[in-house]
Amino acid sequence: MTVPADLLERLRAGVGRFGSVSADPADLAVAAVDRSGARPVGLPAALVRAERVDDVRETLRIAHEHRVPVVPRGAGTGLAGGALAGAGSVVLDLSGLDRILAIDVDDQTATVQPGVITAELDRAAAAYGLRYTPDPASAAISTVGGNIATNAGGLRCLKYGVTREAVLGLEVVLADGTLIHTGRATLKGVAGLDLTSLFVGSEGTLGVVVGATVRLHPRPAVTLTAAATFPDVAAAAAACTAIGRARWQPSMLELLDHHTLAVIDRVQGTDYADRGGALVIAQADGTGAETEIAAIAELLGKEATWVEVGLDEAGSEALVAARRLALPSIEAVAHALIEDICVPRSRLPEAFAGVDRIARRHGVEVYSFAHAGDGNLHPIIGYAAEAPGQAPGEVPAEVVAAGDDIFALAIELGGTVTGEHGIGALKRDWLDRELGPQTRAVQRAIKHALDPHHILNPGKGL
Amino acid sequence: MTVPADLLERLRAGVGRFGSVSADPADLAVAAVDRSGARPVGLPAALVRAERVDDVRETLRIAHEHRVPVVPRGAGTGLAGGALAGAGSVVLDLSGLDRILAIDVDDQTATVQPGVITAELDRAAAAYGLRYTPDPASAAISTVGGNIATNAGGLRCLKYGVTREAVLGLEVVLADGTLIHTGRATLKGVAGLDLTSLFVGSEGTLGVVVGATVRLHPRPAVTLTAAATFPDVAAAAAACTAIGRARWQPSMLELLDHHTLAVIDRVQGTDYADRGGALVIAQADGTGAETEIAAIAELLGKEATWVEVGLDEAGSEALVAARRLALPSIEAVAHALIEDICVPRSRLPEAFAGVDRIARRHGVEVYSFAHAGDGNLHPIIGYAAEAPGQAPGEVPAEVVAAGDDIFALAIELGGTVTGEHGIGALKRDWLDRELGPQTRAVQRAIKHALDPHHILNPGKGL
Repeated sequence: MTVPADLLERLRAGVGRFGSVSADPADLAVAAVDRSGARPVGLPAALVRAERVDDVRETLRIAHEHRVPVVPRGAGTGLAGGALAGAGSVVLDLSGLDRILAIDVDDQTATVQPGVITAELDRAAAAYGLRYTPDPASAAISTVGGNIATNAGGLRCLKYGVTREAVLGLEVVLADGTLIHTGRATLKGVAGLDLTSLFVGSEGTLGVVVGATVRLHPRPAVTLTAAATFPDVAAAAAACTAIGRARWQPSMLELLDHHTLAVIDRVQGTDYADRGGALVIAQADGTGAETEIAAIAELLGKEATWVEVGLDEAGSEALVAARRLALPSIEAVAHALIEDICVPRSRLPEAFAGVDRIARRHGVEVYSFAHAGDGNLHPIIGYAAEAPGQAPGEVPAEVVAAGDDIFALAIELGGTVTGEHGIGALKRDWLDRELGPQTRAVQRAIKHALDPHHILNPGKGL
Repeated sequence: MTVPADLLERLRAGVGRFGSVSADPADLAVAAVDRSGARPVGLPAALVRAERVDDVRETLRIAHEHRVPVVPRGAGTGLAGGALAGAGSVVLDLSGLDRILAIDVDDQTATVQPGVITAELDRAAAAYGLRYTPDPASAAISTVGGNIATNAGGLRCLKYGVTREAVLGLEVVLADGTLIHTGRATLKGVAGLDLTSLFVGSEGTLGVVVGATVRLHPRPAVTLTAAATFPDVAAAAAACTAIGRARWQPSMLELLDHHTLAVIDRVQGTDYADRGGALVIAQADGTGAETEIAAIAELLGKEATWVEVGLDEAGSEALVAARRLALPSIEAVAHALIEDICVPRSRLPEAFAGVDRIARRHGVEVYSFAHAGDGNLHPIIGYAAEAPGQAPGEVPAEVVAAGDDIFALAIELGGTVTGEHGIGALKRDWLDRELGPQTRAVQRAIKHALDPHHILNPGKGL
């Protein structure tokens, strides 16, 4: 696309003395990619580092006038390519808008800018005995704004809900630079259409979030953990189902397959794979945590090859370590294509079995672990960084083919191609198959109503 | 408006042999109103009683072609006039679509038609030890579809969330009769824009919900209740704040003012008002309920004039009776204009005090009770059914004026004019003041994108 000659000049004049505009190719190359591993073609035209809401408004006003694509960006930790920035686009970096503006203890709410690191908001809430419950695995490096853009999930959302459930109101800059407020500061409210939920998870395609009022929850006094290994994934999944059937409500319920345990052991020197063919980690929190974890551990113990309960914070954390080390261990030995399907949780055993079949069929390595309580499975396809005939940065054909088969499996099992990472740039072809043309048409109509020139994160999400 | 001559004929041919079409003025008069007490001008042109999804599609196809307004209707229990049907409109009654299609125990989900009575869904879930958590006061008479249209709240939403949090996916018939599916059957999912949340609470202005997949939760084994009276509303509100500050998470936290207690006593022969000037009722449920209710009762007891804990189901229910009897008692002595403001919960004492001032200023009777944990206050303005110079069905001017002042108070306190009842036909003038013109413009753009001829429930919600 053609970049207007005076774009940089106008952006520099627009963003004022706090923000900055860079056209340095080194800056642009970094700003053009995220953690998806994919690479867009060509370089963006400019990187705007916003420091104020007005920087965002001015950038959009200029881009809107010139019909230049704008790619909003937080910490660039997205896994679906939602922040990939193609040739000629303006990358709008919001990580400088990083202030926690207020924490209200009695209302149990916080008002934040989008660039606040998620774990930092949680830490700030902790000072008041409160918690920001959404906890994607990236919480230590991702931003609240990025989490809002993708409607991020995490380990705790089984009990506490995903990011959408935590967001009460938003400040959003629209495609033409107009600033709107959505939602409210109150815990409930039904005045007009729920624009807040519409912007949450919209991957920067409808507007740019520049502020959020979020709900905080009391930090539980007690969190206890049980871990158990099973002969195989089917037995582990059955144990998870038994917990639900007995109507216990764990605050976390994770399942790791044997392949994942083996790579953790190899990299970390642990011995999980010796204990069994699959690992389940469950947590209970709150006033009833002791009763609950005992009941859960008893249920897990019935078919387990090993079971242990962490009765204090340190013991709990040690039992969760395997889950936290899973992805880093895989990434220590291979490049990783990180998938994110979600199925009705009763169909999780079929999902694990289906992924195994797909791995064998394509001759690829797949490490699978799941937020089992949500039916949210992350099959990680590992591949060598360099292979004969493989261009640098290229994902091997059999890896792409296996990924496609995994998407098809998710839909076949009544599920979705993305439980928490988003559609981004990588899964757009699958959206039609999952949603069907009529639902897609409604999504496009809404996009067109809010961004008639399609300048906001084109080629992403919808 | 002009009604096409062959409308009835076409509707009769369209809805097939199960549904029915009535033009009987007696049917139309009943179908034109809801529980808001307001009366539209003129009579609808037809009442379609749908029995199948295809009846809904066909009705909308015909109405769309003729540009005839369609007013979707559940049980007609709405309090904001969302189901009022004006002259020449087609009322589309969905109460015949009343089947629970599936309850999945392991996935803890249910698939239902919109006409299912909310309490019946909950009863059906109870057979599996599960619960449908949204519990508006109308649950025994309102439909799941109506609850979805208004995003209904209730007593339990403090801990379990409002209707939106319970809805995973929808089947929706659009203005032109197209059937779309939104959301998913899984507990998580972020594929595309969140149309599900957009339709929830849209008051029938974007489409007609003809099916829903909802989330169920484990039914708590134990629910315990504490009740306490206080010298006045300020002391009662302070006690509620203290519970939150101590970071307990009650599953219900209700506050009734002295005026409400007095009318309950008068109608029911009870003696609540003798015990104190305001009543707080709190519940805790789940494994930790005993510990939690003891702690909550201790906090309430500090400034209470009376406190009691219900240690079994019957004792609990007896303590909640006052809350359940509040509205019926008021309606036994007066007509009632039911308001529904929500403020940040820390500002609830100011809201109670402000409502009292407004009542005195206009010389009207206001009974106030609140979902205190949510900051959601229901000021009920009572008035005589007949008064000198007052036309039948007319709301006295001072009642309307007091209602307006209450809306203004809500906005002044950083709140909303509706916490859970919706905008309907009665609060539209206030939407602009609460949301501002830019946000309203976005809402209108979305409405226009989905319903370009504005046939769906015109004059409601947005």
